[in-house]
Amino acid sequence: MEVILIGAGNVACSLGPALKEAGHRIAAVSSRTGLSARELAGKLDSVAVEGIRPLVPFSNGSGQPSVCITMLADDVLKATAGEIVETLGPDTLYLHTAGSVAMDVWRDAGACRYGVFYPMTSFSRNCPVSMRHVPLFVEADSDGSLAAVLELARSISDSVKELDSQGRLFLHLAAVFANNFPCRMMAISQLLLERHGIGFEVMLPLVKGAVDKLEHMTPLESQTGPAARGDIQVLEHHMEMLAGDPEWQTLYKLISKDINPNILTDD
Amino acid sequence: MEVILIGAGNVACSLGPALKEAGHRIAAVSSRTGLSARELAGKLDSVAVEGIRPLVPFSNGSGQPSVCITMLADDVLKATAGEIVETLGPDTLYLHTAGSVAMDVWRDAGACRYGVFYPMTSFSRNCPVSMRHVPLFVEADSDGSLAAVLELARSISDSVKELDSQGRLFLHLAAVFANNFPCRMMAISQLLLERHGIGFEVMLPLVKGAVDKLEHMTPLESQTGPAARGDIQVLEHHMEMLAGDPEWQTLYKLISKDINPNILTDD
Repeated sequence: MEVILIGAGNVACSLGPALKEAGHRIAAVSSRTGLSARELAGKLDSVAVEGIRPLVPFSNGSGQPSVCITMLADDVLKATAGEIVETLGPDTLYLHTAGSVAMDVWRDAGACRYGVFYPMTSFSRNCPVSMRHVPLFVEADSDGSLAAVLELARSISDSVKELDSQGRLFLHLAAVFANNFPCRMMAISQLLLERHGIGFEVMLPLVKGAVDKLEHMTPLESQTGPAARGDIQVLEHHMEMLAGDPEWQTLYKLISKDINPNILTDD
Repeated sequence: MEVILIGAGNVACSLGPALKEAGHRIAAVSSRTGLSARELAGKLDSVAVEGIRPLVPFSNGSGQPSVCITMLADDVLKATAGEIVETLGPDTLYLHTAGSVAMDVWRDAGACRYGVFYPMTSFSRNCPVSMRHVPLFVEADSDGSLAAVLELARSISDSVKELDSQGRLFLHLAAVFANNFPCRMMAISQLLLERHGIGFEVMLPLVKGAVDKLEHMTPLESQTGPAARGDIQVLEHHMEMLAGDPEWQTLYKLISKDINPNILTDD
């Protein structure tokens, strides 16, 4: 397929190369300033443009079906969907990768063929993710669009599932709890260790072991630690050690209570 | 060495077999009711006893040096250390595996040779952990005791470090943030997904990818998600979706603010 990429950030740096490797042609890469688009377009044998308007030559007036995938922050997507559809024409198949934006953003922007292409992983620019095992959740306005989205998705991932916008919203919320919040817990751990001259790498066997366990049991089943054991003395001591970090002390208390509601009741 | 194990729970089920494989003789295994001790002793070619008093025949009156490792909940250790030392005599080398209990618990209980043997991982009964790559943090009352503790530790782990009680307390607190709290975050994710008929396994690529990243960057560096991006619309929408779960809504807000203090300020 002929694909136009809008956005050249973390998602695009993994998705772009995967699409190219699957044999699709990346007609153009757009980013706000054009800088990151230029860097990515170089890797994809593609053309970089700055902003949306210079995409006019790639509009779908010829009748040749093409796909536009936007990989933008949610609020940027909502603010620019109208301009994108106006520029590329109503017959392009519009897809976005934002977990929390409903498919209707495209209908409201005047598109006729549209859908969602949501990769269920976390991207960062410096570590491109291999897409083959990333679950891709897709949705489309019609059976015809869906067939095209499924073909595109299956060309880069072995784990493609249909999911409507409502289900995807909960999936994204669940992903914040499964990925972003554990990352912050570990960052707090890192900051505590650094104060004592210990590097976070000492925690890696623990962290990897915990994830390995999830092959055999659910997070609920694998919960351990002082809160799960109801070990009040350790909990109270840890709270004292966090006296200088009131935000972390509050988090410690609330998460411990969420693990075991019978502990640390208020006086 | 000749080793007596007190406690036959999650830690003992990994540590006991590792000690036996390293060539140490497990003289006895004690547990409160004797039931779990019997199960573990069977695997270790050892003898099970119920409680502390029946360990009298294993006391160190003969002058033969032996090691007693307690793997007890912190409060149970504090409550029974005196009885243990009284039963096994002052010349036994007493070690405990509790991250949050200072070494002095043994001095106060009347022991002459003592130390700490803290494995930095999370244990569960159903998934015995291979000890070889588990960091072991050790401490001892004297150079003589330390030599014995180091010998024992190095016989089962390739990652043995000395650390005093104060450092170990922070290590344990940091481990709660690195391991127990991420587990709870994922359990909340699991509970949210289950309401929508989705199994947590859909999150595993995301979770594994996040841990793989920690080989190259620290948790602080690898933070992603709506809070890190400052994506207020998604944050507010997620908070609305959690309206029926006020505890999780509060956690969502506090952790997001901890990731990015500039967002979600109170009205």
